[in-house]
Amino acid sequence: MTNHLAKENFIYAMDQANEPAMKVKSGDQIVVDTYDCFENQIESEDTAFDSIDWSKVNPATGPIFVEGAQKGDILKVRIDDIEIGDRGVMVTGPGLGVMGHRMENFEVKMIPVRDGKAIFDDKLSIPLNPMIGVIGVAPEEDSISCGTPGAHGGNMDTKEVTTGATLYFPVFHEGGLLSLGDLHAAMGDGEVSVSGIEIPATVKITVKVVKKQSITYPFLENEAGLTALVSKETLDEAADTAVELMIDLIRPQTGLSLSEMTMLMSAAGQVQVGQIVDPLKTAKFHVPMYVLEAYGVEVWGRS
Amino acid sequence: MTNHLAKENFIYAMDQANEPAMKVKSGDQIVVDTYDCFENQIESEDTAFDSIDWSKVNPATGPIFVEGAQKGDILKVRIDDIEIGDRGVMVTGPGLGVMGHRMENFEVKMIPVRDGKAIFDDKLSIPLNPMIGVIGVAPEEDSISCGTPGAHGGNMDTKEVTTGATLYFPVFHEGGLLSLGDLHAAMGDGEVSVSGIEIPATVKITVKVVKKQSITYPFLENEAGLTALVSKETLDEAADTAVELMIDLIRPQTGLSLSEMTMLMSAAGQVQVGQIVDPLKTAKFHVPMYVLEAYGVEVWGRS
Ligand SMILES: [Ca+2]
Ligand SMILES: [Ca+2]
Ligand SMILES: [Ca+2]
Ligand SMILES: [Ca+2]
Ligand SMILES: [Ca+2]
Repeated sequence: MTNHLAKENFIYAMDQANEPAMKVKSGDQIVVDTYDCFENQIESEDTAFDSIDWSKVNPATGPIFVEGAQKGDILKVRIDDIEIGDRGVMVTGPGLGVMGHRMENFEVKMIPVRDGKAIFDDKLSIPLNPMIGVIGVAPEEDSISCGTPGAHGGNMDTKEVTTGATLYFPVFHEGGLLSLGDLHAAMGDGEVSVSGIEIPATVKITVKVVKKQSITYPFLENEAGLTALVSKETLDEAADTAVELMIDLIRPQTGLSLSEMTMLMSAAGQVQVGQIVDPLKTAKFHVPMYVLEAYGVEVWGRS
Repeated sequence: MTNHLAKENFIYAMDQANEPAMKVKSGDQIVVDTYDCFENQIESEDTAFDSIDWSKVNPATGPIFVEGAQKGDILKVRIDDIEIGDRGVMVTGPGLGVMGHRMENFEVKMIPVRDGKAIFDDKLSIPLNPMIGVIGVAPEEDSISCGTPGAHGGNMDTKEVTTGATLYFPVFHEGGLLSLGDLHAAMGDGEVSVSGIEIPATVKITVKVVKKQSITYPFLENEAGLTALVSKETLDEAADTAVELMIDLIRPQTGLSLSEMTMLMSAAGQVQVGQIVDPLKTAKFHVPMYVLEAYGVEVWGRS
């Protein structure tokens, strides 16, 4: 069945103590409305830094309690559809992102969205790639701000988290407690300014519990292949961990030795960057579909 | 005119003190033969670690002295063609690459190349992406092993260094002293095992001196856009530097403020990974062609 969760049901931190905003069954579809990452506070380019209530950023709609999800299971979340608003916003300022050390003023840019493009200025329109910046479950630890990524997902700001993708999250607490928000009309790998083209949206997802199969970080599956999503203090640690988790996940189904598998990943696997500013860094390690198909690798009932 | 440089003319370190193997004029084409990164020592999968002379690895054919190139200029190198051999080799072993901490034995795998594929085993063939692992000029410092990347290029192990790409190197010494080698039949971003599909090759390049324009790290241009190639101790530093160099390079031609430019790079620029094992890490920051075209950005006489 399809459920609807309004954007007024939101949290600022993923936390096992949050009251569920909705209970659903494994297999249910949910339509989730979301604020932009500023809780829709920025209405014009004249918005001053001090006029924004900075305690109200990165709201994630949720949490959704999925019946039957227990610690040690996997929560599978298919992104069925994303509908974004017609106006996005970007910000930069001192201390924010890769260039923050050279910024003197907080600046806001409103970006109209129409005809499949984000209108950056009168010279340039950017093709849309609508995506979910924040999506995750209640973490093993007590509480993690929706502005931070981790083993539970959260603020991964990863381009591939979009329509047609299926995400797999570790379940740390009963019901999983899934939340999502912080949509972007477009974003490049790295998200170097600390902001995508921030925009309110409506997201349609289908959730499913995969029993008795465990993972330690989120994975993403799409037509292109399978991707590990690891967030750590440094990109170097995140990348190394993503490679090792992927090798250990798929090798048992390939019949390859550890040496052979590692060679294969060196020749055909892809280390990629989610974001480098959140402030943990998110690395992706991607294995193309043709490799999975050649060895008949099936993870968690791929379909 | 076209010149031919045989693979027996090689170096193990890029160094201003190396005698030029050939002198060419700006605008000349050069056909360069290369050994594989093991100097063609590995002939079978039975090759033992101790039977390899490890003082003979990563030979780069060169150096090529380009007349008119002076310290502070740019050396432009267009890759016109790559022809690879019909058999590649991969290795793994203890201490090598991301999984080296779990390897017990040195292992060698021979990989036949035919019909546009690298035959990994009877289940899987990998599409070729022939590329140059090592290419660079004599570094500002005295000597850098061909196994290490840096501001001079060197062992960048970056997929996009392939036919159709144009590389731009800083010139640190008269003549530039360009060398190249370490071809791969295929490699994924990251090169996680420390080895691509290593293979001998013949590379055709055209060199050109761009006077009185300086860069501090290599850039790469192809049909997709413009990419900064930065190698540092950590991927984090490499990525941050690549973003900042790119912004400072192209912003003056766009009329954008630093804030606007940074927002644009966050929405449309791409932080990518060259390799994470050499042992410095190489990050790429890529700006798509549609962005360059929208603002009429032309670097160093793009053509
Ligand atoms: Ca975010
Ligand atoms: Ca965001
Ligand atoms: Ca190399
Ligand atoms: Ca190599
Ligand atoms: Ca290498």
